[in-house]
Amino acid sequence: MEFRFDEALPLLRRTPAVLTELLGGLPGRWTDAVEGPGTWSPFDVVGHLIHGERTDWIPRVEHMLRHGDEVPFPPFDREAMFAASRGLSLDQLLDTFGELRAANLDRLAAMGLTEVDLGRRGRHPEFGVVTMSQHLSTWVAHDLTHVGQIVRVMARQYTETVGPWRAYLSILRPS
Amino acid sequence: MEFRFDEALPLLRRTPAVLTELLGGLPGRWTDAVEGPGTWSPFDVVGHLIHGERTDWIPRVEHMLRHGDEVPFPPFDREAMFAASRGLSLDQLLDTFGELRAANLDRLAAMGLTEVDLGRRGRHPEFGVVTMSQHLSTWVAHDLTHVGQIVRVMARQYTETVGPWRAYLSILRPS
Repeated sequence: MEFRFDEALPLLRRTPAVLTELLGGLPGRWTDAVEGPGTWSPFDVVGHLIHGERTDWIPRVEHMLRHGDEVPFPPFDREAMFAASRGLSLDQLLDTFGELRAANLDRLAAMGLTEVDLGRRGRHPEFGVVTMSQHLSTWVAHDLTHVGQIVRVMARQYTETVGPWRAYLSILRPS
Repeated sequence: MEFRFDEALPLLRRTPAVLTELLGGLPGRWTDAVEGPGTWSPFDVVGHLIHGERTDWIPRVEHMLRHGDEVPFPPFDREAMFAASRGLSLDQLLDTFGELRAANLDRLAAMGLTEVDLGRRGRHPEFGVVTMSQHLSTWVAHDLTHVGQIVRVMARQYTETVGPWRAYLSILRPS
């Protein structure tokens, strides 16, 4: 499936509402759960998505428009949320994510990118040359990845609890 | 994590709203997408969840209360939705799932089960003896599994589109 704005934007727009329905007001035993030492809880994941809104997705679009593939993107800190989320509630994080995502989609709309711009090039600090279309489709796939991670972390809290049904639930198998 | 009603019910209650936020009004290129021949689309998964509401989760609770582990549950048809969903729209399926889930949680509440009932036994046609707690926690894990499946199916439509970022997105790796 090629990247198309009219298919990608409806997904990007709904992720905050999906996460608010999934996590808002849920007992902390679910939202603070992890899969093991060094893994992320649903709370951590929402913080990570916020950091992406602040420093990755739209800032890199702007960077590409300004510098093309001459200047690499500043690297993205995948774990910045451990400090940034400290002292905040999950409901605060969900609200912040919703506000930032809406503002970023407004910024994107204001840029008036067209299909032609999807071929623009940027430089990733690790991968080298990438395209606007790859970057924007990664934004979508990254949202979906982390929704998948959140439900997996929660499901795995019941790995033992489901007894023999474990055999039927592939999400419970170590990945 | 042991099964507790006050932790499981908030998750069971929200699944229809999560799926409506995730899928309602989305282009068919996402909701009819599959991972390959013989795999399920998001549309198929919602139909499968409906069939579970009709024939599995609460009917099996009632079966356990009536028969204990003397009579096995009727087997569950995992693919009944292919016929049952024919001619319906995804929005119709999402509404039906929401209505059935709400009605089933009302039926469960009306049974007034307590912690003691979690140890009640039933007989699975394949696994043999199972407990009420295993059955009810499987209901929760099954919801989460299928939300995870839906986001995985959608993310994988972009496996090529994301270019080199594929290396960072574990959801895109064949499972």
